[in-house]
Amino acid sequence: MQEFELIRQIFRNADYAQPNAQIAQSIGDDCALLNIPAGQQLAVTTDSLLEHVHFPADADPFLLGQRALAVAVSDLAAAGAVPLAFTLALSLPHPDVAWLQSFSRGLAAMAQQCHIRLVGGDTTAGPLNIGITAMGCVPHGCGLLRSGAAVGELLFVSGPLGAAAAALRLFKHDSLLSADTQQQLLDAFWTPQPQLALGQWLRGKAGAVQDISDGLLADAAHIAHESGVQLCIEQHKVPLAQAAVACDAAQALSWALTGGDDYQLLFTLTPAYQEQLQHEFPQAVCIGYVQVGQGLQLVDDQGRLLSYTKTGYQHFG
Amino acid sequence: MQEFELIRQIFRNADYAQPNAQIAQSIGDDCALLNIPAGQQLAVTTDSLLEHVHFPADADPFLLGQRALAVAVSDLAAAGAVPLAFTLALSLPHPDVAWLQSFSRGLAAMAQQCHIRLVGGDTTAGPLNIGITAMGCVPHGCGLLRSGAAVGELLFVSGPLGAAAAALRLFKHDSLLSADTQQQLLDAFWTPQPQLALGQWLRGKAGAVQDISDGLLADAAHIAHESGVQLCIEQHKVPLAQAAVACDAAQALSWALTGGDDYQLLFTLTPAYQEQLQHEFPQAVCIGYVQVGQGLQLVDDQGRLLSYTKTGYQHFG
Repeated sequence: MQEFELIRQIFRNADYAQPNAQIAQSIGDDCALLNIPAGQQLAVTTDSLLEHVHFPADADPFLLGQRALAVAVSDLAAAGAVPLAFTLALSLPHPDVAWLQSFSRGLAAMAQQCHIRLVGGDTTAGPLNIGITAMGCVPHGCGLLRSGAAVGELLFVSGPLGAAAAALRLFKHDSLLSADTQQQLLDAFWTPQPQLALGQWLRGKAGAVQDISDGLLADAAHIAHESGVQLCIEQHKVPLAQAAVACDAAQALSWALTGGDDYQLLFTLTPAYQEQLQHEFPQAVCIGYVQVGQGLQLVDDQGRLLSYTKTGYQHFG
Repeated sequence: MQEFELIRQIFRNADYAQPNAQIAQSIGDDCALLNIPAGQQLAVTTDSLLEHVHFPADADPFLLGQRALAVAVSDLAAAGAVPLAFTLALSLPHPDVAWLQSFSRGLAAMAQQCHIRLVGGDTTAGPLNIGITAMGCVPHGCGLLRSGAAVGELLFVSGPLGAAAAALRLFKHDSLLSADTQQQLLDAFWTPQPQLALGQWLRGKAGAVQDISDGLLADAAHIAHESGVQLCIEQHKVPLAQAAVACDAAQALSWALTGGDDYQLLFTLTPAYQEQLQHEFPQAVCIGYVQVGQGLQLVDDQGRLLSYTKTGYQHFG
């Protein structure tokens, strides 16, 4: 297990694993020790990425490092938190130092972008499995939750949807798409952008917030359930990623509604904030509203109810 | 994936996953939100347990739940921290609800003993892999590290060693041992006792502290390396677990020196504290001292140098 010791050194010596003002003790001891500023709560989230389940076999380790950290930090964004630190539990079949160095560079790129540092790790021999627990700070009582949506609020997404789901097709089939479009799809899948600035802006304003990981409809259903309200989604307002439309115009809406993996934020806000939101975050789009009831309602541009099934969607009557 | 949703409900509804005064938001949202008391630092550690690597196939899920949490909490003990919360990243091949309920009961038993609560989780389909990130609180600047050992301090272990390593033999071979001895060995492996009271007592007193997970010699080498000192271990003073001796008297010392998995604490302390330590923690044993130099020295009861190899140990000359 000498080689696993070498791997631990790769992480321990990385720039993104060094102490700073908030990290009194970083990776390398039994525990890390973190300073939480007075008046702040700690936001904590954990995510696992598994080969074959969350990403294709033989994935580029640099991209994998970026994506694994982005997915976890996206949850901090959804809580309105400022990233602080993360731990990494990594299982990999062989102690492949070149793979690890590339993976570490991917982590480093996302860690630098998000101002978050590695403070603990555990590396073991086993099927490829990347577990990240991310921690951040949020002013006391200001953490954003799924449970705060209120009737009368509007429903927004932070940007276009569907590109990450469209990218999955590229993994399976040769493609006639332009190199530009292919790159846009792959970027959407491999390098989701945690919406940290928006999440922090939403503190004290939003009703409910969550990031879109399972798909718009599934995640909207979570907000509806946790808040005890009904969300009405106006299907024609859902913003479709250009690259997803270019990839397959007939599929793009379905990808946007159910594809997941986009890591945009889904949130509710009173109409009074809409103008300010659109000024500060022009990519945000109002896609519906909160009403009395439970679950979801999907409507077309005439207000007619649509019903969604796994294989598509159709008019009710 | 309906069944994975069911599994999430098992954890979310568990007693040990409910909010308390320090846990403002528990499992079920994008992030948990924790209150860290003023003047405290957050101690964080992460551990993974993999089937075939850390435990035998078809292990009892109740015992697995206990052990997985104990191993992580033991790191909090080594930092002198008071447990607060943990997250669970669980991959398992099939959404086996009976298995999960038993695993959850094992977690619950250890969580109750250690006063720690589940605040986040991620359950996915994949090879069995249990990732736990544990968090605790320690008064600012009082966290215990591996790097503080100073020349002139004595070296202690918190209790007898070798039983967990001896238990591994039971997994592989039929045994003629008494039922009592077998149970003691299995208990040592499956239900290590995080030394939380001792860890907290050591705050402000100990030089260096860590828990023994890799084995006494390997872990002592970590302290020596991080502290820039040499640890001298008096081999005849190393306390051997009775059940390990009963299992194989000839092997017991080797298990105690290199077996690992006992999760006792290994620590250095000035002689002035020895009497108080032995009064409060009578199981603690002085096994050596800190001196100028680097690495480890193993000596016999005549002070003669011993050299240890993977297959045994022998006199130098």
